[in-house]
Amino acid sequence: MPNIRHALTVKREDDFAKWYQEVISAADMAEESGVRGCMVIKPWGYGIWERVQRLMDDRIKEAGIQNAYFPLFIPLANFEREADHVDGFAKEMAVVTHHRLIADGKGGLVPDPEAKLEEPLVVRPTSETIIGDAMARWVQSWRDLPLKLNQWANVVRWEMRTRMFLRTSEFLWQEGHTAHATREEALEETHRALEMYRACVEEDLAMPVIAGEKPENERFPGADETWSIEAMMQDGKALQAGTSHYLGTSFAEAAGIRYQDDAGAQQLCHTTSWGTSTRMIGGVIMTHGDDDGLRVPPRIAPHQVVILPMLRDKPEDEALLAYCEVLRAAIAAQFSMGEKVRVLFDKSPGKASAKRWDWVRKGAPVILEVGPRDMENGKVAAIRRDRLWNLDNGKLANSFPEKDEFVSGIAALLEEIQNNLFAEARDRRDANITRGLTHWHDVVNSFRKGGKYPGWVEVQWSKPTGAALEKIVEQLKGEKLTLRNVPRGSEPVDGTCIFTGEPAVERVMIARAY
Amino acid sequence: MPNIRHALTVKREDDFAKWYQEVISAADMAEESGVRGCMVIKPWGYGIWERVQRLMDDRIKEAGIQNAYFPLFIPLANFEREADHVDGFAKEMAVVTHHRLIADGKGGLVPDPEAKLEEPLVVRPTSETIIGDAMARWVQSWRDLPLKLNQWANVVRWEMRTRMFLRTSEFLWQEGHTAHATREEALEETHRALEMYRACVEEDLAMPVIAGEKPENERFPGADETWSIEAMMQDGKALQAGTSHYLGTSFAEAAGIRYQDDAGAQQLCHTTSWGTSTRMIGGVIMTHGDDDGLRVPPRIAPHQVVILPMLRDKPEDEALLAYCEVLRAAIAAQFSMGEKVRVLFDKSPGKASAKRWDWVRKGAPVILEVGPRDMENGKVAAIRRDRLWNLDNGKLANSFPEKDEFVSGIAALLEEIQNNLFAEARDRRDANITRGLTHWHDVVNSFRKGGKYPGWVEVQWSKPTGAALEKIVEQLKGEKLTLRNVPRGSEPVDGTCIFTGEPAVERVMIARAY
Repeated sequence: MPNIRHALTVKREDDFAKWYQEVISAADMAEESGVRGCMVIKPWGYGIWERVQRLMDDRIKEAGIQNAYFPLFIPLANFEREADHVDGFAKEMAVVTHHRLIADGKGGLVPDPEAKLEEPLVVRPTSETIIGDAMARWVQSWRDLPLKLNQWANVVRWEMRTRMFLRTSEFLWQEGHTAHATREEALEETHRALEMYRACVEEDLAMPVIAGEKPENERFPGADETWSIEAMMQDGKALQAGTSHYLGTSFAEAAGIRYQDDAGAQQLCHTTSWGTSTRMIGGVIMTHGDDDGLRVPPRIAPHQVVILPMLRDKPEDEALLAYCEVLRAAIAAQFSMGEKVRVLFDKSPGKASAKRWDWVRKGAPVILEVGPRDMENGKVAAIRRDRLWNLDNGKLANSFPEKDEFVSGIAALLEEIQNNLFAEARDRRDANITRGLTHWHDVVNSFRKGGKYPGWVEVQWSKPTGAALEKIVEQLKGEKLTLRNVPRGSEPVDGTCIFTGEPAVERVMIARAY
Repeated sequence: MPNIRHALTVKREDDFAKWYQEVISAADMAEESGVRGCMVIKPWGYGIWERVQRLMDDRIKEAGIQNAYFPLFIPLANFEREADHVDGFAKEMAVVTHHRLIADGKGGLVPDPEAKLEEPLVVRPTSETIIGDAMARWVQSWRDLPLKLNQWANVVRWEMRTRMFLRTSEFLWQEGHTAHATREEALEETHRALEMYRACVEEDLAMPVIAGEKPENERFPGADETWSIEAMMQDGKALQAGTSHYLGTSFAEAAGIRYQDDAGAQQLCHTTSWGTSTRMIGGVIMTHGDDDGLRVPPRIAPHQVVILPMLRDKPEDEALLAYCEVLRAAIAAQFSMGEKVRVLFDKSPGKASAKRWDWVRKGAPVILEVGPRDMENGKVAAIRRDRLWNLDNGKLANSFPEKDEFVSGIAALLEEIQNNLFAEARDRRDANITRGLTHWHDVVNSFRKGGKYPGWVEVQWSKPTGAALEKIVEQLKGEKLTLRNVPRGSEPVDGTCIFTGEPAVERVMIARAY
């Protein structure tokens, strides 16, 4: 292998955590804000989030869910009411206690003691309770059901250790909340949302996931069932990329969400909630990033094609700019994967080569460099971000297609890049799941021998609950391992539980996790 | 005029404020949340906001502005730094002082005294200071300019008296923030944003506005120039629907936004900011609402056409549903005003007539009722929400076009409704602006004689500043009047100032205002 001079200073194999930080900074996605635990999402990072949001929102609307907006502030009483609920959130929440600032007489400002709130308000960590209140007002009869709502919002959970996109005190998300007449319908919705997440994350974010049910200890507090999609990062750790909960009737009972059935009797609703967040962007980085920066899957790339004119501050630049503009317009008129191709003609100041590396680090799927010679020959110099290097000589693997040929092929090229990124991640994931281990010490060895970045292990177990489960969780914790989920549609069991020795009832995935 | 039985219980002419509340409730747009000063935006209201957001965002992106996201929380120090700034916000802000709740031992929760923040955090009332901090980090040289950012976010200003959509403690908005090398460029951006607002509000929301500069006393605190768009509500009051500020170099100085010019010297940036909010939805209600509820302009209607099948719980329903589905698909395949037509086939339970009135109150632009006879005749029964009544007989003015004819005409029909709503509002506005008054007592009389809902008065003035202006502001206040703006492009002056008697230098609009 030739020696390649990569665009980042840190390699994945050397220090994954440091590499992650460098991608975020080198791709100009986000930065620390100076406000504890909160980040600034910069235009390239936010543009990716906007794409994810748009594609997820289309799927949400397609499913007949209605968007609405609920207050940022939640009264303390709502949390007191749902003891189970608040325990799960460890009570680490931002609390508003005053509604005015006054001068402190020393040139500073302080909360005005005269403006202390009678009841403190909590900045929403999630909106189950306040949306539950609304549902209780809105649902009267079976005719009002199902009630299917979604909210795009910022939420706050006070975090001691934060990491950009993965765990920040404030983050952006969507939270779906639905109420149904029956358990069956609510379960169906729980699974529909999970499947929607799987489809969006795999098809749009090109991030392969394993969908399954969380074991009891990993359930959302108060939920009857919690389902998740889990993605494998390049360091072998699992990232929970979305969850869907069947809440039974307990949340309905706490909030008083009742309906009159067609026989006139009062019934409790069965509710669900499901959410995904800016955390997915962290997953995109750790799934598709490489030692040259980010690689953005075309479907979620704010710009899918970037055109860089190689200007020389000479009169000939005019003709080159005109050539590039014709190229831009031709590409912008193409459709790929059901949408107009998003192309940026980057005329910002700076050398073309420096700009090229900026876009490599940001991970634009296709970069076109156009110089005077390309123009003369009616060509473009094209770089595919998913196949950046010529591995024979360690140089950039650019190609020089005819301009018109490039334009007519762009739709297929973007689709190919999208599919390649997915296939690459899926193959890596599949190669890093170990199955068939029958003893706990084999599991331990598998992780210990897996090198710096071991993958996952799927084992058969007897699905213990309560204290027996707690014991297993502790046992796993000793190896820094966690139970991820019980994969949907996995092979039938044929052995004994790796923990208890009892007959197995299902398979469960074990991994280190974010 | 025949006696029409309107769908609302309160008429605009009887009690405008009460009518406004009834529209919001009858159109199912929003409701009080139970959290002080915060509302719940229900799906129909939020759907309208999403449309406004999408259309405004398209214009923002078209102008080369980049969306980003900044923290919800702002350190106290930022407010202390900008004394001018904070004075203007009257310090009525939500203050976070704790990051944890604990049990109070009596079954309740209280902020944990152990988790008191060293420095309280303010929930953003606007983001000038925190975005200013980021700009100071991001701008180094002239090559980094202009820097043009926008944020879609929730903001909080503690309000004592709230009114849904118009003034709530939490509201949704967009805030644009730009930094430029020169005053000229920053002023150009200030005007571009203002013109973008005018175009969006007039073309998309069908709400005619007067764009102009705010007098000194109405400027954003710390701004060199504040421009606004002002819309006339049906009660004659003015609603400020958007503002654009040229901030000079004072905000850049406070935040340290400096650039190195091409000669190597450090220079302060010239900055702008501009915003619009969910307040615009209040404007839409008070511009287009009537005594039957809301009328949503087609461009911002979540559903432009609603199909209501007249079902009878009989086997024939099947054929009717199939007929309606064909109709729905045919309409959904049409394009109007550059977008796919948004059609809802409303199969929810309930009588068709009750559902019809629900959609009338919500203001869907076109309502189609389809019964067995319509199906037999290949027709539909169509209601245009902008022309609901037959004024000859006081009955609903429905028409019965051939189905195919209706489908092929839907694009033009929606455009016509959009234009009609705008023209109606513009004509009413123009008929209610009085010009040519030359004495203060004529202005007073104009408002006193204007009946319950007087319009606006445009006068010539000498543009006094400082104490002289304050005196005029007080004089106006005595009549509950305010200076709105100095309309862009108004007639040249030819007289004396109505307040000072000095030669006039411009024309200024006077009105009661929200």
